[in-house]
Amino acid sequence: MSRESEFQAVARELACDFEGPLQTGGNYTAVVRHGGQVFVSGQVPRVGSEIVVTGRVGSEVTLERAQFAAKVCVMRALALLRQNPGSLDAVSRVLRVTVFVQVADGFTQLSEVADGASELLFRVLGEAGVHTRSSVGVAQLPKNAAVELDLIAAQA
Amino acid sequence: MSRESEFQAVARELACDFEGPLQTGGNYTAVVRHGGQVFVSGQVPRVGSEIVVTGRVGSEVTLERAQFAAKVCVMRALALLRQNPGSLDAVSRVLRVTVFVQVADGFTQLSEVADGASELLFRVLGEAGVHTRSSVGVAQLPKNAAVELDLIAAQA
Amino acid sequence: MSRESEFQAVARELACDFEGPLQTGGNYTAVVRHGGQVFVSGQVPRVGSEIVVTGRVGSEVTLERAQFAAKVCVMRALALLRQNPGSLDAVSRVLRVTVFVQVADGFTQLSEVADGASELLFRVLGEAGVHTRSSVGVAQLPKNAAVELDLIAAQA
Repeated sequence: MSRESEFQAVARELACDFEGPLQTGGNYTAVVRHGGQVFVSGQVPRVGSEIVVTGRVGSEVTLERAQFAAKVCVMRALALLRQNPGSLDAVSRVLRVTVFVQVADGFTQLSEVADGASELLFRVLGEAGVHTRSSVGVAQLPKNAAVELDLIAAQA
Repeated sequence: MSRESEFQAVARELACDFEGPLQTGGNYTAVVRHGGQVFVSGQVPRVGSEIVVTGRVGSEVTLERAQFAAKVCVMRALALLRQNPGSLDAVSRVLRVTVFVQVADGFTQLSEVADGASELLFRVLGEAGVHTRSSVGVAQLPKNAAVELDLIAAQA
Repeated sequence: MSRESEFQAVARELACDFEGPLQTGGNYTAVVRHGGQVFVSGQVPRVGSEIVVTGRVGSEVTLERAQFAAKVCVMRALALLRQNPGSLDAVSRVLRVTVFVQVADGFTQLSEVADGASELLFRVLGEAGVHTRSSVGVAQLPKNAAVELDLIAAQA
């Protein structure tokens, strides 16, 4: 299956729409390309104008729901990479992913949350989606989002 | 207005001095250049030898004061870029900014804090200052600083 | 002393074995190389299959023990760089190190923890080990690790 059809299959499974402009707040930009690298701003699990998973993982948010949130973050990042230059086929490698998880006290399954993101990157991009990763449990994320994810990719 | 005069105008507005050597602690360095990229170490709102904004944002520190802290961090980063090679004109693009905010429980306006940094980068550098960004609320920052900011830039 | 013998000397001092395959969990990879840069995934102080320093720094974990943890993380990162292409001599510069510390409330000596990592990088790699750095105190790390460290290096 092509990356594009895999991307669309995942969007259907998550029942989320990632077409059209992706809202980003503030005085910065979602994507910067330079010298073969593409930097993608920290993505929260926003679909349309709504953050779909908010609260602390380990108390208000289950592991499963946090993995879903991580997947939505990845899909947003992929949607941004796909809008410009217009196809996911230009991504030659995902270099670095950082996954921040808004945790309740004592929740240590951060790698498990991030696995939701990692699996999806591999599913859509194949070997080009195999990345390095850091997973960190933090006190608070923008707009009370349960997960925030940023990445650096290489692009042809 | 040139980048240099904008930089100096902001320094006057913040009533902070960013001339001369910038103190950094520890066994590392403030700036590393490699292959067209410049990495700047995490900056706290230090002016001279004093951290000017300490404490938790949302309880001890107001949003406005946290935005001021974010601006001081950016000015330090710009001052470092400016010292070597000697001018801000060599910065061709800010690629990535990460803003860590030392938060009180329940404070979620992390994007608003980071906006202080983003606005300033645009003001001084123009389009070259438009960057990707991640904002994260954390438990503790070095020396009880309210904000810490690091960045990667492209330099000619 | 060569980098290799320095690496082995440190391993003996820490009484930890960094030979052989390094366990990493999940659906990602420990190292990605691209365009002269090497990204290393977030390392926790794992020796063999055990995380050797767990808990919160400032209450359950002392500063000294956290510095030890930071050193183990660095040794793992170096061991990964050393496995491929087969020698530490290929590392031309460490560009960025991020040190996440799992903190107890009120612990602000994050730079001091990170100094453990920074000193070791300089000891083994010399000037090539002088890096930019961010130190952050976070709520929770994977598997209750006391420290997590990731880095980006330049490699010939």
